[in-house]
Amino acid sequence: MTHVVRLFIDQPLAEGQPVPLSRDHANRLFNVMRMDVGDELKLFNGHVGEVAATVVEAGKRGGVLVVGAQTAALRPPPDVWLCFAPIKKDRTDFIVEKAAELGAARIVPMQTEFTNSDKIRQDRLQAHAVAAAEQCGGTSVPEVAALQKMGALLDAWPEDRQIMFCDEAAKDGALPEIRGKWAVFVGPEGGFSKPERARLGEVGHRITLGPRILRADTAAVAALTLWQSKLGDWE
Amino acid sequence: MTHVVRLFIDQPLAEGQPVPLSRDHANRLFNVMRMDVGDELKLFNGHVGEVAATVVEAGKRGGVLVVGAQTAALRPPPDVWLCFAPIKKDRTDFIVEKAAELGAARIVPMQTEFTNSDKIRQDRLQAHAVAAAEQCGGTSVPEVAALQKMGALLDAWPEDRQIMFCDEAAKDGALPEIRGKWAVFVGPEGGFSKPERARLGEVGHRITLGPRILRADTAAVAALTLWQSKLGDWE
Repeated sequence: MTHVVRLFIDQPLAEGQPVPLSRDHANRLFNVMRMDVGDELKLFNGHVGEVAATVVEAGKRGGVLVVGAQTAALRPPPDVWLCFAPIKKDRTDFIVEKAAELGAARIVPMQTEFTNSDKIRQDRLQAHAVAAAEQCGGTSVPEVAALQKMGALLDAWPEDRQIMFCDEAAKDGALPEIRGKWAVFVGPEGGFSKPERARLGEVGHRITLGPRILRADTAAVAALTLWQSKLGDWE
Repeated sequence: MTHVVRLFIDQPLAEGQPVPLSRDHANRLFNVMRMDVGDELKLFNGHVGEVAATVVEAGKRGGVLVVGAQTAALRPPPDVWLCFAPIKKDRTDFIVEKAAELGAARIVPMQTEFTNSDKIRQDRLQAHAVAAAEQCGGTSVPEVAALQKMGALLDAWPEDRQIMFCDEAAKDGALPEIRGKWAVFVGPEGGFSKPERARLGEVGHRITLGPRILRADTAAVAALTLWQSKLGDWE
């Protein structure tokens, strides 16, 4: 765990370029973290890897950084989506944080038959994904999609993207060695409904997460771990 | 996810046996869950699997159940320990909950060089493990051990128990196909120190959890997932 400050900045980051800071970022760097002119940090924007930066102006409401040399190459995560059913607020935040840490490329909240929530705070979840990417040393941030119905999501499903379907009722099931685009589907507390399971079983590869019932947040972490270790960038 | 009430009861559970309830259990069943005489639930004690039970007396401060037939066989988890360094309270609770869900047999909090906490609430953590086992359909509860220094833990290490060592700095590393007793070692935020890594590298099997830095709680879930899917009871 590094103690270097890392910031996701949605701006161009060419060497020598000045970067004006938003009020939020200025508050975080200069009030919360007590940084000052001359201090160094790391930036990434999802396109250029990680770059060094130096504070050249520090104020209460703003400030300016200057971009230095690249310190790490861009390392985009494998092209795997996490499609999950939002649950209680805390655990939904947690799922988004973990998905970013574990290197999901896109996070898709979906409504299923047994999902209670009919809205999410997309901006807040996106902010969680940014914070997790900053902390875990990522060089990009997964996009958090808008909430959508699982049926509609599957109706418009891209043909070239495989589905890994975590089935509570499955006794076994192995992930096939197919490289390329994937999505991992994890159900809500209460699982997928019977018709949902049937449909996912048709379009996806069924796998087991063991004989115990996992909470939805545990299942999301376990599922991404299995995928990453078998088909992702963990080896 | 079942909505049947499941209770871990540390008492004998032979068929026909009356089971007096503690004040806590009575409060939970009769005040919180509004159960009453004649209602049914499930019990387990770590020895007899899962049994049915019926409420025969319900009061504010106590009550009695009668044990019915066995409803599930004892299914002890594989003999894997989770040895982890406690972190912030919430995330430590979380790790214990997840370890119980994922089927760890024993949970060992340990002090490492970069661990801040010098005490834990063992009873509270044990209660978390019980709650998780009740919820996930387990038929036993992992024991939460007392906090101990990692050095001392390794000094007295049982010779017949393999160690899987999650090394942040490892680029690769696969789990060998050795069946039997295992323990999974996960470091604190900040990782293991260099001497600790050297020692664990000598006594354990080094594996990677990918190129991103994982929080300690994420690492614990990912590590147990990898172990269970490769050497445990997930298939």
